[in-house]
Amino acid sequence: MTARRLREAVCEANRDLFRRGLVFESFGNASGVDRARGLVVIKPSGVPCERLAPSDLVVTDLDGRPVEGRLRSSSDLPTHLEIYRAFPSVGGVAHAHSTFATAWAQAGREIPCLGTAHADYFPGPVPITRRMTPAEIRTDYEANTGRVIVRRLARLDPAATSAVLVHGHGPFAWGASAADAVRAAAVLEELARLAWATATLNPGAGPIRRALHEKHFGRKHGPGAYYGQPPRER
Amino acid sequence: MTARRLREAVCEANRDLFRRGLVFESFGNASGVDRARGLVVIKPSGVPCERLAPSDLVVTDLDGRPVEGRLRSSSDLPTHLEIYRAFPSVGGVAHAHSTFATAWAQAGREIPCLGTAHADYFPGPVPITRRMTPAEIRTDYEANTGRVIVRRLARLDPAATSAVLVHGHGPFAWGASAADAVRAAAVLEELARLAWATATLNPGAGPIRRALHEKHFGRKHGPGAYYGQPPRER
Amino acid sequence: MTARRLREAVCEANRDLFRRGLVFESFGNASGVDRARGLVVIKPSGVPCERLAPSDLVVTDLDGRPVEGRLRSSSDLPTHLEIYRAFPSVGGVAHAHSTFATAWAQAGREIPCLGTAHADYFPGPVPITRRMTPAEIRTDYEANTGRVIVRRLARLDPAATSAVLVHGHGPFAWGASAADAVRAAAVLEELARLAWATATLNPGAGPIRRALHEKHFGRKHGPGAYYGQPPRER
Amino acid sequence: MTARRLREAVCEANRDLFRRGLVFESFGNASGVDRARGLVVIKPSGVPCERLAPSDLVVTDLDGRPVEGRLRSSSDLPTHLEIYRAFPSVGGVAHAHSTFATAWAQAGREIPCLGTAHADYFPGPVPITRRMTPAEIRTDYEANTGRVIVRRLARLDPAATSAVLVHGHGPFAWGASAADAVRAAAVLEELARLAWATATLNPGAGPIRRALHEKHFGRKHGPGAYYGQPPRER
Repeated sequence: MTARRLREAVCEANRDLFRRGLVFESFGNASGVDRARGLVVIKPSGVPCERLAPSDLVVTDLDGRPVEGRLRSSSDLPTHLEIYRAFPSVGGVAHAHSTFATAWAQAGREIPCLGTAHADYFPGPVPITRRMTPAEIRTDYEANTGRVIVRRLARLDPAATSAVLVHGHGPFAWGASAADAVRAAAVLEELARLAWATATLNPGAGPIRRALHEKHFGRKHGPGAYYGQPPRER
Repeated sequence: MTARRLREAVCEANRDLFRRGLVFESFGNASGVDRARGLVVIKPSGVPCERLAPSDLVVTDLDGRPVEGRLRSSSDLPTHLEIYRAFPSVGGVAHAHSTFATAWAQAGREIPCLGTAHADYFPGPVPITRRMTPAEIRTDYEANTGRVIVRRLARLDPAATSAVLVHGHGPFAWGASAADAVRAAAVLEELARLAWATATLNPGAGPIRRALHEKHFGRKHGPGAYYGQPPRER
Repeated sequence: MTARRLREAVCEANRDLFRRGLVFESFGNASGVDRARGLVVIKPSGVPCERLAPSDLVVTDLDGRPVEGRLRSSSDLPTHLEIYRAFPSVGGVAHAHSTFATAWAQAGREIPCLGTAHADYFPGPVPITRRMTPAEIRTDYEANTGRVIVRRLARLDPAATSAVLVHGHGPFAWGASAADAVRAAAVLEELARLAWATATLNPGAGPIRRALHEKHFGRKHGPGAYYGQPPRER
Repeated sequence: MTARRLREAVCEANRDLFRRGLVFESFGNASGVDRARGLVVIKPSGVPCERLAPSDLVVTDLDGRPVEGRLRSSSDLPTHLEIYRAFPSVGGVAHAHSTFATAWAQAGREIPCLGTAHADYFPGPVPITRRMTPAEIRTDYEANTGRVIVRRLARLDPAATSAVLVHGHGPFAWGASAADAVRAAAVLEELARLAWATATLNPGAGPIRRALHEKHFGRKHGPGAYYGQPPRER
């Protein structure tokens, strides 16, 4: 992928974030990484997603040093960078403020797997980070946000668990590309909405059986997957 | 109905499922049966409903053996087949992941008849299946899903009770055709939404009186029905 | 108003009921009365509101005897007639199955006046009828529905209290014309939605002070009203 | 800004209030002030926002004496005037009846800061006024509404806290212009919706840590702000 293509793809992902109703005002951002060149492309700060053009995007290296672009990058860039540095399989990151995912984050609760729709996408609950300490908040806040995310994922596979709730804040999601990251944020919002509606009907609703969870996750992921069409041969 | 017509009708039903907002991503499927020829037409696996063309549909016999179509059938085909084999009056089946019907399924609760809108469509509560055992989940999961549905309907009339909630999963609905099955799924979602709103206002709200339930169901169904226009004579 | 005009107005009111999202499938109906001629115009039974044409409307006298129209009238006609006969100020009636008004009816609760938006429209809570007895349900059900409505309004002024919840069923609303009745049903739905959201935040929320209620109702209704523009003189 | 421009801006703000779904029927109004000339421009009473033209707007002085316009001003004018007189930094005021902000007002609860989206906009909870006394309601109701708002803000900075809930009534919001006031009303509604969804998941959810609140508010407001693009130099 050329640098121009990556800019276009990340621009489109940010616009998609807006079109799917996952952001609050201009709050939300998506980025993509070019691992070969060591470049990150991210939304500029405070520019509404819907008015974004590819030339507005900001290019940095994996340490956040500016490479290209006339605008200031999203203030959440250091969070994205921590994720890229810790998870080599990740090609795109999205930060949303969608209603129900944010509500679970604000409620301080991980999202339990209450049904098979959740099991189709996540191998376990959607995790939530611990509260950050005042020290972590006051200095290097955005980088520390990334660090508590990475630590929360320590014993999980980020290629399977594609989103996390930041306590008192909102969701971060990721995937093989910026577009995949936005799709993961959209799926998360739907699952959060289903889980919210379930919790209002039955506050004590517990997770589905492990066998059912594994069956559904396994139908779509891993060596035994049989959902969808087989990959085409050439 | 010719095979081509059935393909078109089932394709349209799947698109309708999407347009009515009853599916989650590409999750959901509708099928139809031609009893005379013993053929079932169903959505292919993993193909988004909105992009479906009649030629994408898969045709099998009532044991699921492929008859026509280049794509792999929906992984839920064995569930549909169990329903067709057990309920001879059924001409179409729809599986949705609509928000509020799924929330009741995830909450593990049947939908009680809380008002006359429900009584207009269902002769009793919307039933929920029992949890499946790990053994039923690990082997022949989709066929076993159909079997627990059929068993749950054992003392009910599937021509009157046109939907069921699968525990921890979501709704299956049926009718005289694929279009009727989708309509049953849409009605179920509306009733699930009304019942959800009612339960959030009054968690102890109980079913309406039996006399009121029978009056409303009877106004629209069976020999004493007086709702709607009389059938035209020729 | 000529008979043709009344048909057109009632047709438009039924279409409006649909456009405003207040009905469930084809469930809901609006009617209008011509007091001078003693004629009632109502929606035919089972015909979707959105496809209605003026010529589909049914005309009866105030005892429900057919005067004009090739279709069968709404099965709720006897309820409308009871309201017309008891409340001479009423020129139109609408029956909806809108989500939140129906939820309060299904929850068996009147809608308390929790805020000034409610007080702007209703002089007190939105009343709810008592449960009907099995005898009232089995014989003359629709006329008896009208009778419990009329009895519930016995000590209220139907020119001020323009809607009621029928227990376990849904709302009936009325006004000076069919259009006004539909508008009353739309206002009721908004107030029911506000009251529902309030009740989910504070289940014990009580009515606003009587002085505040009277102030707001009085700003828009009665001799001291000062809301809106003064009537034009000619 | 000329008088004509202010009329156009206030007209557009009122239309925006409607387009964003923040008003209930014609209930809601926005105004703007020209401090240099001492003129206030406000919506006329009872005219639907969506049909408003600039020439319909009413112009008064800061004591509410009519200066221009053929229509009667919004009955809430005295509330707006109290706010303008007490808060010199305010250039526009908006009164909405949006669902979730009104639900909190009806529930009699201030909106706690449950997450960073809230902290991005408000330096503390969204305050709620005390209940008004019967005497305050009976005489000079609208001016007294403004006075309880002003008193509630006594120890707060109205340039930072840009909205308040009036107990049992609904939100008033303000800003540097009528457009900013409407935007503040829209942000408030989103925060109220997030807080409502959070409260339904966890009724005991408490405010985020003070350090986190200050970090987020400080990222966007005040001398240390680093969100968005730096102001352009000329």
